[in-house]
Amino acid sequence: MSDTRTNAGVDNVSTFKKMFTWSIPGDRTIVLLMAGNLGTSQAVISLLDERAKLAKKGSTTILKAPSLFQVARLIGETLREVIDLNQQGGDSAESPFGASIIMGGQISGDNHKLFLIYPEGNFIESSNDTPFFQSGETKYGRPILVRAFNPEMTVEEATKLLLVSFDSSLRSNLSVGLPIDMYIYERDSLRTGYTRRFEASDLYYINVASGWGEALKKALKALPDFNLER
Amino acid sequence: MSDTRTNAGVDNVSTFKKMFTWSIPGDRTIVLLMAGNLGTSQAVISLLDERAKLAKKGSTTILKAPSLFQVARLIGETLREVIDLNQQGGDSAESPFGASIIMGGQISGDNHKLFLIYPEGNFIESSNDTPFFQSGETKYGRPILVRAFNPEMTVEEATKLLLVSFDSSLRSNLSVGLPIDMYIYERDSLRTGYTRRFEASDLYYINVASGWGEALKKALKALPDFNLER
Repeated sequence: MSDTRTNAGVDNVSTFKKMFTWSIPGDRTIVLLMAGNLGTSQAVISLLDERAKLAKKGSTTILKAPSLFQVARLIGETLREVIDLNQQGGDSAESPFGASIIMGGQISGDNHKLFLIYPEGNFIESSNDTPFFQSGETKYGRPILVRAFNPEMTVEEATKLLLVSFDSSLRSNLSVGLPIDMYIYERDSLRTGYTRRFEASDLYYINVASGWGEALKKALKALPDFNLER
Repeated sequence: MSDTRTNAGVDNVSTFKKMFTWSIPGDRTIVLLMAGNLGTSQAVISLLDERAKLAKKGSTTILKAPSLFQVARLIGETLREVIDLNQQGGDSAESPFGASIIMGGQISGDNHKLFLIYPEGNFIESSNDTPFFQSGETKYGRPILVRAFNPEMTVEEATKLLLVSFDSSLRSNLSVGLPIDMYIYERDSLRTGYTRRFEASDLYYINVASGWGEALKKALKALPDFNLER
C-alpha cells in the first residue's frame, strides 16, 4: 500500500502514484513502492522501464533477471546511478536526492519475496522476524503495526490494518495524503495482482477512519483508570 | 510526563531524569521537560539554577521573573547561549547540540501556562487550538493523542492516555525508555505538584501497556472487514 502525496515544501504539494508494477503472466510479477525524492523515483522507474523494453540480447533487466535478488540488485544499482548523477551535477535541492524502495513479487521457480532497497543501493529481505517493511514517513503508522500485525491475518484484515496505519500518518503529517493505492499479489499466481485505489470519498476508507477514532476512545476508556493518591 | 532514556548511539544508552522543577510556595511553580542533547540540557539547567541562587539584586532569574513569559524568554536565552558556546568551540558531536524544552507552571497573579521553547531560543505558548506540546521523539506517540485527547478529560484519564502514548514510542524506538516521570500541577495551588515515577515494574503501567495491546486488537476486529472483490 502506498500514498500519493509528494511535496517540495508545504506550499508545493502534488499527487503522484508511487506504486509501479511489471508483470509477465506465468513468469513474473514485480511491484515497486517509491519513497523519497520524486525526481529520483521517476528517473529510476523510467530507466528500469526503458532498459527493459530496449534490452539487447544477454543484458540483465528487471524483466529478464533470473531471480528477485538479481532484480533488487539491479534496482539498487539504478537508484545509486540516479542519485550519483544528480549529486555530481552539483545540483542542490531542499530535500536530498535520496529515495528508498520497497520491492515485492515473484519470479517463476522461486518463492515470493519482499525487499527494502536503500538510497545507498544495498538492500534487505523480509523474514519471519521482520515480516513487513515501511518506507518514507514511517513513524506515526508504526505503533499499530507493531501491536496488531499478525502473520495469521487474512488479506482482508491486513487491508484494514494498513488503512488504519496510513490513517494515523495522514492525520498527523501533511507529507502523507490520499488517495492510497493498494496492490495484492496472490502467491504463486504469477500474474498481475488485484489493485484498488482508496480515494477520500471511498466508503470503506471513511468507515474505517471514523470508526477507528471511536474504537480508540472506547479502548482507552476500557483500560483501568489511574488512581491519583494525592 | 517525560521518559529518561538518553543515548549517544545504540551502544551508549543511559538513564537521566529529563524533568526539573522549581517551586516557591504561594509564589510560583515551574516545570521543565528537556529533549535533545543531554550536555546542552544539563548546562541549561545548571545555569538557570546557579543564577537563581546567586542572583544579585535587580537581576532577572527564573525565581524572580514577574511572569511565565519572562521565564520562557530567560530559558530561551540561556538555551541559545549554551548552544552557541558549544558550536563556537568548533566541537562536533554525533548529534547536534540542539535541545527543545517544554515549560509549564504558574506565577502568582497570572494564569497557569505552557510553553514550547525551541533550540533557536524562541518559543510558543499553548492555546485552546493547540492544548498540548510534545518534544523529542514525538511521532510514534502522536496519533493516539490526536485521536483521543479531549480537554474535558480528568487528570486520571489524561495520565492513562499519556502512558499509552509513551508506550507506543517505547515499543517502536530505542531512544525512548522507562522509567517515565510524571508531574501534575494543580491550577492556582502555587505549590509543588504531585510527582510519580513509572518504573518497568509499576503495576499500573504494566496493566495499561499489556491491556492496550489487547484493546487495540479488539478495536481493529470490531471495524468492518474489507470486502475483496476479486
